[in-house]
Amino acid sequence: MTISLDQLNAADAATFVAAVGDIFEHGSWVAERAHAARPFATVAALHDAMMQAVRAAPRTEQLAFLRGHPELGGRVARAGAMTDDSKSEQGGLGLDRLNEEEFARFERLNAAYALRFGFPFIIGVRRHTRDSILARFERRTGNDIETELAAALSEIGYITRLRLVAKVEGPGKPKTDGRLSTHVLDTAQGRPAANMYLELFEVGASARSCIAAAMTDAGGRAPLLASGPLRIGTYQLQFHVGAYYASCGVAAATPPYLEMVPVRFAVAEPEGHYHVPLIVTPWSHTTYRGGG
Amino acid sequence: MTISLDQLNAADAATFVAAVGDIFEHGSWVAERAHAARPFATVAALHDAMMQAVRAAPRTEQLAFLRGHPELGGRVARAGAMTDDSKSEQGGLGLDRLNEEEFARFERLNAAYALRFGFPFIIGVRRHTRDSILARFERRTGNDIETELAAALSEIGYITRLRLVAKVEGPGKPKTDGRLSTHVLDTAQGRPAANMYLELFEVGASARSCIAAAMTDAGGRAPLLASGPLRIGTYQLQFHVGAYYASCGVAAATPPYLEMVPVRFAVAEPEGHYHVPLIVTPWSHTTYRGGG
Amino acid sequence: MTISLDQLNAADAATFVAAVGDIFEHGSWVAERAHAARPFATVAALHDAMMQAVRAAPRTEQLAFLRGHPELGGRVARAGAMTDDSKSEQGGLGLDRLNEEEFARFERLNAAYALRFGFPFIIGVRRHTRDSILARFERRTGNDIETELAAALSEIGYITRLRLVAKVEGPGKPKTDGRLSTHVLDTAQGRPAANMYLELFEVGASARSCIAAAMTDAGGRAPLLASGPLRIGTYQLQFHVGAYYASCGVAAATPPYLEMVPVRFAVAEPEGHYHVPLIVTPWSHTTYRGGG
Amino acid sequence: MTISLDQLNAADAATFVAAVGDIFEHGSWVAERAHAARPFATVAALHDAMMQAVRAAPRTEQLAFLRGHPELGGRVARAGAMTDDSKSEQGGLGLDRLNEEEFARFERLNAAYALRFGFPFIIGVRRHTRDSILARFERRTGNDIETELAAALSEIGYITRLRLVAKVEGPGKPKTDGRLSTHVLDTAQGRPAANMYLELFEVGASARSCIAAAMTDAGGRAPLLASGPLRIGTYQLQFHVGAYYASCGVAAATPPYLEMVPVRFAVAEPEGHYHVPLIVTPWSHTTYRGGG
Repeated sequence: MTISLDQLNAADAATFVAAVGDIFEHGSWVAERAHAARPFATVAALHDAMMQAVRAAPRTEQLAFLRGHPELGGRVARAGAMTDDSKSEQGGLGLDRLNEEEFARFERLNAAYALRFGFPFIIGVRRHTRDSILARFERRTGNDIETELAAALSEIGYITRLRLVAKVEGPGKPKTDGRLSTHVLDTAQGRPAANMYLELFEVGASARSCIAAAMTDAGGRAPLLASGPLRIGTYQLQFHVGAYYASCGVAAATPPYLEMVPVRFAVAEPEGHYHVPLIVTPWSHTTYRGGG
Repeated sequence: MTISLDQLNAADAATFVAAVGDIFEHGSWVAERAHAARPFATVAALHDAMMQAVRAAPRTEQLAFLRGHPELGGRVARAGAMTDDSKSEQGGLGLDRLNEEEFARFERLNAAYALRFGFPFIIGVRRHTRDSILARFERRTGNDIETELAAALSEIGYITRLRLVAKVEGPGKPKTDGRLSTHVLDTAQGRPAANMYLELFEVGASARSCIAAAMTDAGGRAPLLASGPLRIGTYQLQFHVGAYYASCGVAAATPPYLEMVPVRFAVAEPEGHYHVPLIVTPWSHTTYRGGG
Repeated sequence: MTISLDQLNAADAATFVAAVGDIFEHGSWVAERAHAARPFATVAALHDAMMQAVRAAPRTEQLAFLRGHPELGGRVARAGAMTDDSKSEQGGLGLDRLNEEEFARFERLNAAYALRFGFPFIIGVRRHTRDSILARFERRTGNDIETELAAALSEIGYITRLRLVAKVEGPGKPKTDGRLSTHVLDTAQGRPAANMYLELFEVGASARSCIAAAMTDAGGRAPLLASGPLRIGTYQLQFHVGAYYASCGVAAATPPYLEMVPVRFAVAEPEGHYHVPLIVTPWSHTTYRGGG
Repeated sequence: MTISLDQLNAADAATFVAAVGDIFEHGSWVAERAHAARPFATVAALHDAMMQAVRAAPRTEQLAFLRGHPELGGRVARAGAMTDDSKSEQGGLGLDRLNEEEFARFERLNAAYALRFGFPFIIGVRRHTRDSILARFERRTGNDIETELAAALSEIGYITRLRLVAKVEGPGKPKTDGRLSTHVLDTAQGRPAANMYLELFEVGASARSCIAAAMTDAGGRAPLLASGPLRIGTYQLQFHVGAYYASCGVAAATPPYLEMVPVRFAVAEPEGHYHVPLIVTPWSHTTYRGGG
């Protein structure tokens, strides 16, 4: 169910809040106040106005708003007692079905954080892997209250930007999609490496394993991830170079010097383009971050 | 206890056999026949003469000689009832202390091979990883008898060459040592990458895990393996690039695009030089087989 | 003045010949015979039919047709007494205004070729540099008559394909355009190298010097040649890497290790895509043939 | 005619000055004063003591000393009326036989410099190409007197260090030799590129053209310059890759994509090691500054 920016610009307050009041978790007052700033030239301008309403709110109201968010990987998540958006976001990383050990770790982190700040830890889950969430959880628990309040509001910005983009159609949408792609060049034969099989793994202590697999096309290219933000974390591309050269009939040692070529890298900008090419011969390879 | 080639060239038959009669497993007759070909200009020539004696022997004698070798990973190995050389060679790969599952796999392979050829599977263990032994065991069990006899004698050549080189001092030793080395160049800063930590892993279904670790020297170099033959198999070098650039104060993303850089390759020539350099920036890397 | 394939398919013989009779130099009989093969599904099919008419003609007619072509760089070219198409093709390489030495060289080659074969040397000039024309002129003068006749007809194919594509609009045009492009990646900074100045030179004994210059765009890309066939020959891209890093404020030696980076390569396929990227730091660079 | 450091340490003042008094141009007083600081543990310590004597001298004496040096490329150089050391140093760059235009340029620079500072322009000629001398000549003429005096004394240090190292044998010689080398790896075939022909050119407005040529050895290596300092300036290595692959029988396009591969770089540290490798296939190449 989407609505157009034009419709929103023309809406009265009640209609406006009915349409986008749930973008901010249990915080329809944000939409109420943003309504006054109509018309919005772009979807990004609407989002800015809503964030401005949050930032302009009194501290007590901000804190109450933050307290309205569910714990990450906590009892509420397990019980499924969250807004639909939160369910989908946490569920995408499996945070609603942690095993006992993982659950206990989140419980400890949630308790320590709540004790220190008085509101739950908030993070734009869809921009993270479990490993990067755990790393930030631990780091941010050491913040002072002002720094952490700013961090929490910044994450609210990421979360609501994604929700808004999914709900409102119109010009000037803020950039929320990242992209991961590869391109394989065979410099032993001077042409793109077509039909090379490759896999993409997320790596890390609590990683989700193989998340994509592809065969390069006639131009040696393979799109890998293109919808939604990339997740901050560490990845490994695995290029099946040995099988490729065997299928081309290119002579190799026994066993071939290169069979599976791993390329490991980290994503730090969820909305960025990570182009990770491989320039390869049976005896060498080069990779670099392209895109950007 | 070594002996010089000069001493061997001057020795009578009894002394000669006493010195090098055990190079060929339970086959002192090989040394007896090679004695006649003295003097030898090089250690390699002595080895050639001994192999020539084996190849010139009647088929029945060759088969008896092959039957004198212990099974790989078999009961005899477990019981320690082998020549000292065989104990050391099999022990180096842990073939004398396999777990039950591994033991059962070798039992099956030994039985199938013996049924087909009537002598035990012979391979120069010190030139192999467990994975490459298992791969060759299965492949060679499919050979016809003439091909397999030639393969077994070729492996006898590898085994005895190593034993002879350890026992006889003199000119013209055959090449038995391989070498594995690396060199890291930092092309963001235009200089060798000094003090980068790196590890070498053997990889594969039954691999021995981390087999070397080193810090690059001021010239960016690290010797890794240099004594004895390399083992045919698959390896992974792991370069700790992220920590290196952090220690240099070079700016990076959070997390850094490159943290641990894996380089995976296979060794096919145990006596070769595998130089596996890394040319690296915080955003790219190149590797190739040097040496050779 | 173009005509559509549909119009040609509907045309009577006179109209047809009036429209495309001059595609083949002084050879309107080719169009006359091809007319019978209407309708043509594609422009390529029309061209095939015309070439088929040439190949099916009796030897004497073929030779008369070949003799109707002007000499390369000869008196006729100088005097401008050629068809408009020939003028434009030869003029594009300056073959109509050679200096005395060059003119003399072409005179000698034309004389030797004519003596041997009895018709003038024919080559698709727009697919060549002067150097590659001279190299082929000398090589082909050594051919036997059958090989050379085939070579001449093959070049007629290239020449007329280009003329036809310029004149006839319609589906299924044969590929006549090549493409040359570059892309610069700065792996010291992990991003495309924007605003790097670069030049493209043709190199060789009789080369035309700088033929393109560009500044890379925000994505590090620069299209260089995209219209018409590339010319077979040797090229040098010159990337002004020193100025780029100076403008980025990246520290360098005095003088910088890399100032102007030359990349020299040859084009062998005029209709191909030559993508010639540069992956660069202040201390290193990599290039390869992409595209293809 | 060399002398040992031991002999110098044992020498009386007259013998000491006779031996090393001419290291500093028309400045035997430098040796006289350094004599008192004997014994010297290293040749470097002797040089330091001599430079210390110069730096400790009164300004008028320093200026007189500087005035005792010949002009670069001036009338005195032309007439050959210089110390033997100066003749050899200037002659190595051809500064004693400039053509009229070059001579006039040096005359102008010498006149402007002398007018401003009252002493001739001094530079360690053996560490420079003509281009880098001219660049520094123009730049330094803009200095204030204190900066320029320091620059002149620093160059005196370079000049006399080379003279001293040539004359005195003993431990702890200061480093005066640079080194330029290359190494070619063929990653299409996974081995060093043996027997590849390559040339080294000095490039620039007044460059000396081809200064070395070599064939790579079996390991793909070629030492190029190893004796004396490198000259600050711009160089181009030219690797004959096309001929190499043709001799290996590796298939290529016609003409080959890579024929002669130029690698252009600048030397900024005359006493450094510039290792400039090429990692090459018929379709790609990589180079970087190694050594260092």
